Amino acid sequence: MTVTLKDVATLAGVSVKTVSNVVNGYAFVKPENRRRVEEALAATGYRPNVGARNLRRGRTGFLALMVPELSIPYFGELAGLVITAAQKRGWSVLIEQTQGTRSRERETLSSLGPHLVDGALVHPEALEAADFPSPGEIPLVMLGEHAVDVPIDHVAIDNVLAAQTAVTHLASLGRTRIAAIGRNPARGTSSQRLAGYRAGLVAAGLSYSDSLVAPAEKWHRSVGAAAMRSLLASAAPPDAVFCFNDLLAIGALRAVAELGLRVPEDVAIVGFDNNEESAFSLPSLTTIAPDKTALAEAAIDLVHRRITGDKGLPPQDIQTPFALEVRESTSGR
Amino acid sequence: MTVTLKDVATLAGVSVKTVSNVVNGYAFVKPENRRRVEEALAATGYRPNVGARNLRRGRTGFLALMVPELSIPYFGELAGLVITAAQKRGWSVLIEQTQGTRSRERETLSSLGPHLVDGALVHPEALEAADFPSPGEIPLVMLGEHAVDVPIDHVAIDNVLAAQTAVTHLASLGRTRIAAIGRNPARGTSSQRLAGYRAGLVAAGLSYSDSLVAPAEKWHRSVGAAAMRSLLASAAPPDAVFCFNDLLAIGALRAVAELGLRVPEDVAIVGFDNNEESAFSLPSLTTIAPDKTALAEAAIDLVHRRITGDKGLPPQDIQTPFALEVRESTSGR
Repeated sequence: MTVTLKDVATLAGVSVKTVSNVVNGYAFVKPENRRRVEEALAATGYRPNVGARNLRRGRTGFLALMVPELSIPYFGELAGLVITAAQKRGWSVLIEQTQGTRSRERETLSSLGPHLVDGALVHPEALEAADFPSPGEIPLVMLGEHAVDVPIDHVAIDNVLAAQTAVTHLASLGRTRIAAIGRNPARGTSSQRLAGYRAGLVAAGLSYSDSLVAPAEKWHRSVGAAAMRSLLASAAPPDAVFCFNDLLAIGALRAVAELGLRVPEDVAIVGFDNNEESAFSLPSLTTIAPDKTALAEAAIDLVHRRITGDKGLPPQDIQTPFALEVRESTSGR
Repeated sequence: MTVTLKDVATLAGVSVKTVSNVVNGYAFVKPENRRRVEEALAATGYRPNVGARNLRRGRTGFLALMVPELSIPYFGELAGLVITAAQKRGWSVLIEQTQGTRSRERETLSSLGPHLVDGALVHPEALEAADFPSPGEIPLVMLGEHAVDVPIDHVAIDNVLAAQTAVTHLASLGRTRIAAIGRNPARGTSSQRLAGYRAGLVAAGLSYSDSLVAPAEKWHRSVGAAAMRSLLASAAPPDAVFCFNDLLAIGALRAVAELGLRVPEDVAIVGFDNNEESAFSLPSLTTIAPDKTALAEAAIDLVHRRITGDKGLPPQDIQTPFALEVRESTSGR
């Protein structure tokens, strides 16, 4: 029943050694062979005998992934991609949820060590530099914002540029009262997207007004709806809104519709994350689409490099791509 | 920095022994004390020294959770609740994704053993009875459908009754051409919901027609949209649709709107799962709402009972509650 390396090699038409090289993540495999092996791995459902191999290498076979909440679609999608990328290297993934609070994030970080995991991917919301463990314990890769200045590996998109791109798009449609939803001084993500929002206004020759920036402690749909209602109730309501994530934007869409206003005619809306639901909302949501697959794979590659010998490598700062996905909430139907 | 049992006890105003009893999941704690300890645990972010404790007890400190895909909101939400419930007992959770294929599910099951995890929660889609390991290895709890007749612990809602409830609701609104989206003979979930759909039609005095049942291999939004378009293009289109999950229903909503028809006036729609997004769609979605928290906690309780001594207990079959959440997609605004 168990699939062996030999089964995979036979199906792929390559040597067992080549399959082994792919499974172990070595770089010197011809692209064509790598592709055939990866297809055969997927088709056979091969799983390395992790226990035996890890014992041999003195590893646990586990990576930890620390995220705020799996029920937030961005993190559910990202976690799925991380697990897939990790599995290709023979790692199982432990998931730790922090609710994005500093105390839980700190506790989680301090609980991770070489007895438990070979490395960790952490997506902090509120951690400060002093919370990070001294280097050298286990490889740690930070996902998302580079809000904390610590010398560890880091993979993220350029959040300032992405936010600026969203605002520039709204300005290019002739909108002049562009609001923002999602300000939260405790979150690094928020600071970066707010900076991009301001840069976008400046670039478009629009002035910044505090009254157009709505706070949001949690970036949930209900919070986006409440913030939108409050913006629309003001003396000078916005004609466009940049929401710091898609959940806030989905809530904002709903609030606009409940007031009998139209998106995008009365208020154009842009989100951030490109959750799968955003292509199906009514109207569908224009949003910043980070390449989540690239992000997950880059992070796993970094942990793998650290473990397989690049321990002396200086901390890496990898930017993965993003795109503006234009849909009905700004372009109409 | 590290929070101790004593810190928690001081905050809760109880003895260290009481905190220890709560953390270790013993039953004989007064409800009021349990509540105070749980609040203090949450406030302090206390985490048991899992490594030391597990070593003492001969445990790994890990549970496995096997699901098809974390990017499906139901599984993202469920996984989050399982991790939270497991953490209260001092377990970390490894997540394994199978894409719902039998080969991947089988491989995952066979890879789990006492060297790796103390127990596993599995949500199979395609496993057959022969795929299950012999009992006695590690405690295994099956989540979701009871499609496979194996003598292991099982936690689920009554899917047949839930589907019947959805159809009865549509019939009570006077709908007579009630379609179903989601038939997939390879999935136990589908068979049970289809049985409930048929039972609902019978109870309402409506006849079953194959032409009103749309297949769906993957239960994704795009598949629901395509199935809805195909149903609406038929000679005798439906006036209501029961979708086997919320993603299919969200896709169906979108397809109806794209054709210029109205929900619920022209087509009423009911989903299944009560994903968070379903309360915010336009219109919001009437859906079957399983009590996911109860499901996660019942499953963790079962694993805990098995490990702490109830090994001789016969296989348990626990039904957790569900409700019909009536929203705009059937009631209008």
